Amino acid sequence: MPLNKPANCEYTRPVYGWPGLGMIYDFPLNEKSRTYLRLESLFSQIRDNLESDQSWAHIAFFKGLFDLQELLERGDLRADLIKDLERLGQRLSHWASLPDVDLEQISQMQQESAQLSRNLLSAPRPGARLKEDRLLGSIRQRFSIPGGLCAFDVPQLHHWLATPAIARHQQMQLWLSDINLLMNAISLLLRLWRESGNFSEQVAVNGFFQDTAESAELIRIRLTGTQQCYPTLSGHKNRFALRFLPTTEQQIGDVPFQLACC
Amino acid sequence: MPLNKPANCEYTRPVYGWPGLGMIYDFPLNEKSRTYLRLESLFSQIRDNLESDQSWAHIAFFKGLFDLQELLERGDLRADLIKDLERLGQRLSHWASLPDVDLEQISQMQQESAQLSRNLLSAPRPGARLKEDRLLGSIRQRFSIPGGLCAFDVPQLHHWLATPAIARHQQMQLWLSDINLLMNAISLLLRLWRESGNFSEQVAVNGFFQDTAESAELIRIRLTGTQQCYPTLSGHKNRFALRFLPTTEQQIGDVPFQLACC
Repeated sequence: MPLNKPANCEYTRPVYGWPGLGMIYDFPLNEKSRTYLRLESLFSQIRDNLESDQSWAHIAFFKGLFDLQELLERGDLRADLIKDLERLGQRLSHWASLPDVDLEQISQMQQESAQLSRNLLSAPRPGARLKEDRLLGSIRQRFSIPGGLCAFDVPQLHHWLATPAIARHQQMQLWLSDINLLMNAISLLLRLWRESGNFSEQVAVNGFFQDTAESAELIRIRLTGTQQCYPTLSGHKNRFALRFLPTTEQQIGDVPFQLACC
Repeated sequence: MPLNKPANCEYTRPVYGWPGLGMIYDFPLNEKSRTYLRLESLFSQIRDNLESDQSWAHIAFFKGLFDLQELLERGDLRADLIKDLERLGQRLSHWASLPDVDLEQISQMQQESAQLSRNLLSAPRPGARLKEDRLLGSIRQRFSIPGGLCAFDVPQLHHWLATPAIARHQQMQLWLSDINLLMNAISLLLRLWRESGNFSEQVAVNGFFQDTAESAELIRIRLTGTQQCYPTLSGHKNRFALRFLPTTEQQIGDVPFQLACC
C-alpha cells in the first residue's frame, strides 16, 4: 500500500553530479504514459529555467516550450487525462476501504483529482494561447535553424532578453498559465502511479531480465550511482524485457537492480 | 584607427536584464559574415554552458553543439577563413604604416593571425571527431523529437549526466578540442572587424534610415537599453536600409541611434 509512505522524497530523474544518490529510470509501457513522461520532463525543464539568471537559460526554456507545443498540437490529451483521473478516483476509493491507510491524505487526493478533472473539462484547449503569441511565434519559427536565434535573426528576442528580469518572468508566467492545469494533472497522476509500485530486489543475469507487468503503466528501474551500465527496455503492455548495457569496455556480468511495476 | 582604443570592453550581445548597459545589434552584409556571426553565437552558447552546474545547462550546450555541427557539415569554412585571415594580415600591415598606432599590439595580432592560418591549413576538417562520437550521435538523433531526451529515450545520456561533474567537463572539453581552432580564428576576425568601425550618431526619421556601406562586412547598431524598439535590416552588399520597429503600441517617431560600418 503506497499511502503509508511519507511524502515522496525520491528523485524521478538523476541528481546530476551526485552519483551517491542513485538513479531511477522510468520506462513507459504504452503510448499514453510515454507522452505523460515526456510532458512531465518538459514541464520540469520549463519551470527550472523560468527564473534562471543564466544567460542561456532561455534556450532550454524555449526548447521545452516549443517541444511541449508540438506534443499538444498532436492530439487532445484532455480526454485521456480526464479518463485517467476518473480511474485514479476509483483506485483511491478502493484504497480508502483498506485498513491502516491515511484517510485524510486519500480524501485530499480525491478532491484534488476531482477538481482537476472538472477544470480540465471546462478549460480552453491547452496551448491555444501560446500559439497566438507573436513573440513566441517569431522565436519558434527560427528555433530549428542552426544558430538561428542571433540578434540579426530575431532582434525582438534580444530586445526582450535585455528587458528587466521581473518583466520577463511575468511574461513567462503568463505563457505558462495556459498549461498549468495540464501540468498539475499529469504531476498528480504520475506521482500516484509511481507511489503505487514498490521496489523489489532483482538480478539481471548477464545483463538480461524479463517479466510480465499486468495492467501497469510504468516500469521503474533503480540502480546505484556507481554501476557502470544503463538499462534499455523493450516490450509492450504485459511483457517486457530489460537489457543492461555497459558504459565501459568491460563485460556486463550479472546486474543487481531494483524493479517496480506501477 | 581602431587600435588606439583600449581592449574591447563592449558587449557584442546584450547583458540580459541590465538595460542600462545598452544593446548592440550586429547585422551581417553577406552570407559569409552571417555564418561567422552564427558560429560566434554558438561558441558562446557552448562555452557558457560547458561547466555550468544548472541541471538543464546540457540542453543549451547540446543545442549549440548540434547547430554548430550542422553549419560545419554544410561546407568547408576553412577556405573562407584562411582567405579572410590573409586579408586581415594585409590590413594590419597597412595600419602599422600609419602614425600613432600601437605597433606592439599590431605585431602580436599579425603573428596570431598567421599562426591560426597555418594551423587551419594543416588541421583535420573541424567537426569530424564530433561526428564519430557514439554518445553525441545517440543524443543528436533524439534531439529534434519533442521531449525526446527522456531517460527512456537516451538512458546513456542520463547515466552520463549522473557521473561526477569533473569527468563530464573533461569529456566536453575533448569534444570541443575539435573546433577550438575554428573558434579562435572566427573570434579574432570578428573582433578586428568590429574594432575597425567607429560608431557615429544617427537619427532614423520615422524609424527609417538608409545608407551605403562600401566593402563592409557588418553593420552595428547601438541603442540605449530604454528605447522601446528594435532594428531590422534589409539590403545587401553596398546598400542597406534600417527600419526600427516599436515593441509597444506607440508610434515609432524619430529614433536616435549609433551606427558603425565594419
